[in-house]
Amino acid sequence: MDADLHGPSVATMLGFEGKKLQGSSEGIIPMGVSPNLVAVSMASLIENSDAPLIWRGPLKMMALKQFLGEVQWGNLDFLIVDSPPGTGDEPLSICQLIPELEGGIIVTTPQGVALLDSRKCVNFLRNLKIPILGIIENMSGLKCPYCGKNIDLFKSGGGEKAAEEFKLPFLGKIPIDLNMVNSADDGKPYILQYKDSDTAQIFKKIVELIIAQIIK
Amino acid sequence: MDADLHGPSVATMLGFEGKKLQGSSEGIIPMGVSPNLVAVSMASLIENSDAPLIWRGPLKMMALKQFLGEVQWGNLDFLIVDSPPGTGDEPLSICQLIPELEGGIIVTTPQGVALLDSRKCVNFLRNLKIPILGIIENMSGLKCPYCGKNIDLFKSGGGEKAAEEFKLPFLGKIPIDLNMVNSADDGKPYILQYKDSDTAQIFKKIVELIIAQIIK
Repeated sequence: MDADLHGPSVATMLGFEGKKLQGSSEGIIPMGVSPNLVAVSMASLIENSDAPLIWRGPLKMMALKQFLGEVQWGNLDFLIVDSPPGTGDEPLSICQLIPELEGGIIVTTPQGVALLDSRKCVNFLRNLKIPILGIIENMSGLKCPYCGKNIDLFKSGGGEKAAEEFKLPFLGKIPIDLNMVNSADDGKPYILQYKDSDTAQIFKKIVELIIAQIIK
Repeated sequence: MDADLHGPSVATMLGFEGKKLQGSSEGIIPMGVSPNLVAVSMASLIENSDAPLIWRGPLKMMALKQFLGEVQWGNLDFLIVDSPPGTGDEPLSICQLIPELEGGIIVTTPQGVALLDSRKCVNFLRNLKIPILGIIENMSGLKCPYCGKNIDLFKSGGGEKAAEEFKLPFLGKIPIDLNMVNSADDGKPYILQYKDSDTAQIFKKIVELIIAQIIK
């Protein structure tokens, strides 16, 4: 469920940009992405993908309520909510609308200014009494495609340090990968296209660490 | 003026993180950054920099109103408002609170999913009848510090293409620069620390293109 209402890029990344959600007598039918993945994004509700959503908080709360209550999600193993950056209306609404949220996952880049925001997220979730499943360090270094050397573009290790400091699980470091940028733009999930890559293994390990905490 | 209330990183980037704003009988005194720059950020109003701002739209509107109306800005040449990504409450409030806004500047990275958001921003500003001063392409390539080759990390040219399509001025491409990441984290503006670098020249050119449109 794409809770980034102003920048609903999940639709592009999962390859259903431009398609509109259909309704049935039982509710909204989510987009089928793969045999075991359905998704809902604001991108599939607005007519023109270039049209901005000029909505304030109360309308956004209503939209998220509809996503949660009126979509025929079926029998899900997991509901994953992708939230926009920050501690604004969207994550606040999600935390208040889902009574038994298993937990929040914080994704950060390693540089100082990004970590500052992540520290706010930790305290945001703690204030709302939501368990925190861990911190993921994204855009953590890059291998030069020409010389193969590792470039710490946005520094490295910042996410890990923050996890230690807050006594939270550190879930892993995801490097920048040119293939991932292309996969996202082409709507073909990276982990399906490059399932044997080192980065796909990192994703798999992260998922295992998350699942281990949820299914006890 | 830092309008990113949930992620007020301008305070870190300009080196006044941790300092609190002071009031006088005439209003709030903005932070002095350099002889010709003062700034105001939510980071200087909250007690603890790790504390999240758990506010919905109406409170945010009030804060921005205060920033605009109760800060002793003095006789400014320019008021530059840094807005969070997207078309949410913060930019909407700014556009509604400043009656004679000179224009909006759209900053985007070149990859497809980011451009999609930028196209929404163009239409957001057009809907609100705010002139658009142009598009800047940020994180536009990177020179490998080891082999010197250029890496198009998030693709390249997307911002320029969008500007053409929307018949908007293209203001320039800012490459990723490890020194810029460090400057931001250290609170020492890059253009002061590295004023002779190629990237500083790009910044200068962008500013000239903007000023030429405002001062006619």
